[in-house]
Amino acid sequence: MATLKVPVHVPSPSDDAEQLRKAFEGFLEVVHLEMDSRSDLSQLIIDILAHRNAAQRNSIRKVYGEAYGEDLLKCLEKELTSDFERAVLLFTLDPAERDAHLANEATKKFTSSNWILMEIACSRSSHELLNVKKAYHASYKKSLEEDVAHHTTGEYCKLLVPLVSAFRYEGEEVNMTLAKSEAKILHDKISDKHYTDDEVIRIVSTRSKAQLNATLNHYNTSFGNAINKDLKADPSDEFLKLLRAVIKCLTTPEQYFEKVLRQAINKLGSDEWALTRVVTTRAEVDMVRIKEAYQRRNSIPLEQAIAKDTSGDYEKFLLALIGAGDA
Amino acid sequence: MATLKVPVHVPSPSDDAEQLRKAFEGFLEVVHLEMDSRSDLSQLIIDILAHRNAAQRNSIRKVYGEAYGEDLLKCLEKELTSDFERAVLLFTLDPAERDAHLANEATKKFTSSNWILMEIACSRSSHELLNVKKAYHASYKKSLEEDVAHHTTGEYCKLLVPLVSAFRYEGEEVNMTLAKSEAKILHDKISDKHYTDDEVIRIVSTRSKAQLNATLNHYNTSFGNAINKDLKADPSDEFLKLLRAVIKCLTTPEQYFEKVLRQAINKLGSDEWALTRVVTTRAEVDMVRIKEAYQRRNSIPLEQAIAKDTSGDYEKFLLALIGAGDA
Repeated sequence: MATLKVPVHVPSPSDDAEQLRKAFEGFLEVVHLEMDSRSDLSQLIIDILAHRNAAQRNSIRKVYGEAYGEDLLKCLEKELTSDFERAVLLFTLDPAERDAHLANEATKKFTSSNWILMEIACSRSSHELLNVKKAYHASYKKSLEEDVAHHTTGEYCKLLVPLVSAFRYEGEEVNMTLAKSEAKILHDKISDKHYTDDEVIRIVSTRSKAQLNATLNHYNTSFGNAINKDLKADPSDEFLKLLRAVIKCLTTPEQYFEKVLRQAINKLGSDEWALTRVVTTRAEVDMVRIKEAYQRRNSIPLEQAIAKDTSGDYEKFLLALIGAGDA
Repeated sequence: MATLKVPVHVPSPSDDAEQLRKAFEGFLEVVHLEMDSRSDLSQLIIDILAHRNAAQRNSIRKVYGEAYGEDLLKCLEKELTSDFERAVLLFTLDPAERDAHLANEATKKFTSSNWILMEIACSRSSHELLNVKKAYHASYKKSLEEDVAHHTTGEYCKLLVPLVSAFRYEGEEVNMTLAKSEAKILHDKISDKHYTDDEVIRIVSTRSKAQLNATLNHYNTSFGNAINKDLKADPSDEFLKLLRAVIKCLTTPEQYFEKVLRQAINKLGSDEWALTRVVTTRAEVDMVRIKEAYQRRNSIPLEQAIAKDTSGDYEKFLLALIGAGDA
């Protein structure tokens, strides 16, 4: 369930494109930038782009390019700065292109705490992930998998490459015999602290989400703990943290994203990079559920937490995306 | 370049379907099967199905199902037997469904010499392989990758899972710096006999075919041998055989298939399973090149070799697919 609010009567893509173009041009004419024209432009960008769905934004971008011979994204890049710029650019991108962009950034500066690759691999549907791979081919003239395989090492490589390579079955059919036997395999390996065992990686990276759910339910029932509790044996182990995040992202993505938001907001100085990523990627998907999870866990609404932690156009844009106020 | 011959004037799918239906019914009426009616039916099947492309065969199957309430494949299965049956059924299937079927058979009775999974993973284009994975989901309610991962072990698993999971970039762009550095990695690992090293698997399973070609050319130039020569250190090692086949399949598929055909035909009693597979899967793809390679290597035309080694309707069907005689 999306929080994005699209007005009942949406202007045509060419009307939207024209409005944006005029605002850019008006803004450029003002030599000494006045506060008014800057905020007018920002407000217009928010009014239009934060209230159109992916298909509508794609149409605006297409029409804009045809009418004015420039890429709308390049124009936005010229006018905007800082966190507001990143949020607007990311959100305006088509979801598959956006994920390809985020994944490519991640392969360039991969650190063990950079989980975007896992997040994209595990929280998107098989077909969405496939579209990310196609967009990656188109933008970077290579494959996502080869970049991940090339830029990661050791146990991270062993887990992340199959995760991003996966094309999981998406049906609801579940094999209960298999669920039992694989729950036992997982429990045996985890009990022996063989967290990077081939079988653990195989089960987590190839089984359908429905099958994995059945396996983990069986794990819980038969062995007395949720798997993620057993995976907390060494709380400081970075690989175990990633593995827990994988499980969470595959089975309860809204809880995974709630935690990313919570950590981003509670951080000293707050982590706008993560905040922007989660809001722009989930606003059209499951932000309603994420907000519910946030409220439940933190006892304040996400809107309020974001408003307290951010300011200006950036704040307005994020709040619009998570559905605060009217379309 | 395909060898399949489609007549200039192709009957409509419903005409073809009707002809087949009438022949099935006529055949059923004859209680004591006469040689004539059997051979009439076989000839009709060859005349129609061995001379229609994949789209046309799909249409015939669709129209047949709608008109007579039965799957054409099931009807063919009832009427035909043995090698002719398998060849007709495999060829009539849509290419992606056919590969999914072959791959599923392979996961069920995997032996180290069963290379069909590798063959499908390496000789199909990225988009063809993707369609195989989609067909696999649809037919078997699970993913190809999970079955391969589940049913293979050890070094075969380590190589085959990333190969079938790949979605390689298909463009012609090549990074020469990367080609040099990865040629050196390959040479170092092979010199140390680390054939199953992560880096070897990574390069072979993720790089685009164009990039891999550049890397292997560089290998040849810099280190004095083609990689497959260096991979012959231990000729009886089954994993090395598979790795050489992977390289061949990725870089010169027609030579790979020529060898499969040669071994199938020269075998005592000949290997119809392999012969049928190669002819039905390549007739619409690159059989012209495979025939050239066969003639070059064996000094007799493939047609002649197949005619010598097979007989009856099966022979006629294979010869029709490899373009012997008229459409």
